[in-house]
Amino acid sequence: MRFDILTLFPNTIQNACNFSIIKRALNENKIQINTVNPRDYTIDKHKKVDDTPYGGGAGMLLSCQPYLDALKSIEKKENSSVLLLSPKGKIFNQNLAKEFAKKEQLIIICGHYEGFDERIKIKSEAEEISIGDFVLTGGEFPALCIIDSITRLLKGVLGDDESAEYDSFFDGLLEHPHYTKPRKYEDLEVPEILLSGNHEKIKEWRRLQQFIVTKNKRPDLFEKFLKTELCKLDKRILKENNLF
Amino acid sequence: MRFDILTLFPNTIQNACNFSIIKRALNENKIQINTVNPRDYTIDKHKKVDDTPYGGGAGMLLSCQPYLDALKSIEKKENSSVLLLSPKGKIFNQNLAKEFAKKEQLIIICGHYEGFDERIKIKSEAEEISIGDFVLTGGEFPALCIIDSITRLLKGVLGDDESAEYDSFFDGLLEHPHYTKPRKYEDLEVPEILLSGNHEKIKEWRRLQQFIVTKNKRPDLFEKFLKTELCKLDKRILKENNLF
Repeated sequence: MRFDILTLFPNTIQNACNFSIIKRALNENKIQINTVNPRDYTIDKHKKVDDTPYGGGAGMLLSCQPYLDALKSIEKKENSSVLLLSPKGKIFNQNLAKEFAKKEQLIIICGHYEGFDERIKIKSEAEEISIGDFVLTGGEFPALCIIDSITRLLKGVLGDDESAEYDSFFDGLLEHPHYTKPRKYEDLEVPEILLSGNHEKIKEWRRLQQFIVTKNKRPDLFEKFLKTELCKLDKRILKENNLF
Repeated sequence: MRFDILTLFPNTIQNACNFSIIKRALNENKIQINTVNPRDYTIDKHKKVDDTPYGGGAGMLLSCQPYLDALKSIEKKENSSVLLLSPKGKIFNQNLAKEFAKKEQLIIICGHYEGFDERIKIKSEAEEISIGDFVLTGGEFPALCIIDSITRLLKGVLGDDESAEYDSFFDGLLEHPHYTKPRKYEDLEVPEILLSGNHEKIKEWRRLQQFIVTKNKRPDLFEKFLKTELCKLDKRILKENNLF
């Protein structure tokens, strides 16, 4: 998978990717991260990439020419998508991450300052994506989140012992609680069942915990899960615990 | 505002904060960002901070001792909160950013690997926060998003010409489209009204655009907005355009 990131702050992206799973995926050539700076494409003699808004108002807006020329400079692979990060976009989630992970190339346009000239969105035909209902200075941190979440899903990136299928949202539920050594930390002990060695019982207990955690913390996700095709075991656990 | 970030990757946080508004806020001493590495607090002779899960399963879990001792090492201010980043958390949004911006100190615990020993959450009494329904390698990128969104809201951080009150979500709506020079880019022209110099009409047009954009892209936010106390002008624009 190749990521091409349009950003005024290429170093921020490159430095932040020199880290953990992303770094390993880069080193193993599972992903490539290319940054393109629209400032290198401006034809303005002062290297300006922004200007004041028509109609008045606060802030500076990113101009069409440098962004769209920078975008044109990127060689497009066949199976590629262009994303534009904006609070107006579709909310990013694990299902979108899975969709994007099937692409060969993702081109991500990061905004900055007050926003984009509307025509950048129109001409780029980009899909507007938001990572949540909050305002940030630029698209750089969301781009990093998107790169990370997608990279984890690519074949061969995670080892067997860190498989993505144990993660939250794999089947729409939150994770069960985890415990590691020591058996007793101050007054808190690991639940007996986890020490039992009975793998069937442990599996059931964990599944039940997933149901309880998701129902309590994210009833919206739990409702959605109940509407999916449930397996026999899930049905039984839900029924036995009056969750269904 | 002081941010204390518990992370195994302090350089990732520090490098990424050397950038744009956050950098300026740091230089002007509007914020301080302190990183604490739990690895420096482990009493394990191999400097381990993680271990295998009780009950079996994939991945490594972060252990109580290094994280809770690292947390204890941080001097707590009176008006402070502890956040723990996790997909199980309450979803971060602009309202939470506004709440947290009132604090003197935010301590943010970043996870990594498969997750935390459940007792870290219990003992730290941290508020669990998620930035969205997707899985990441660690809490570092979400922590950066949270630092950025909160920093923008602090008094004196943004200049008058970049005021946060023009941002998306300020009153629960998405932003209207923006246009800057040139007046015509390829076949696309700036809407006439923005060139009219009639500030009242421009204000109304922009407000209408906000309603239309929000209704189309985020009907959930639009419904919420309609339930708030609407001003006379908003009511008139909504009515005239059959949006209410």
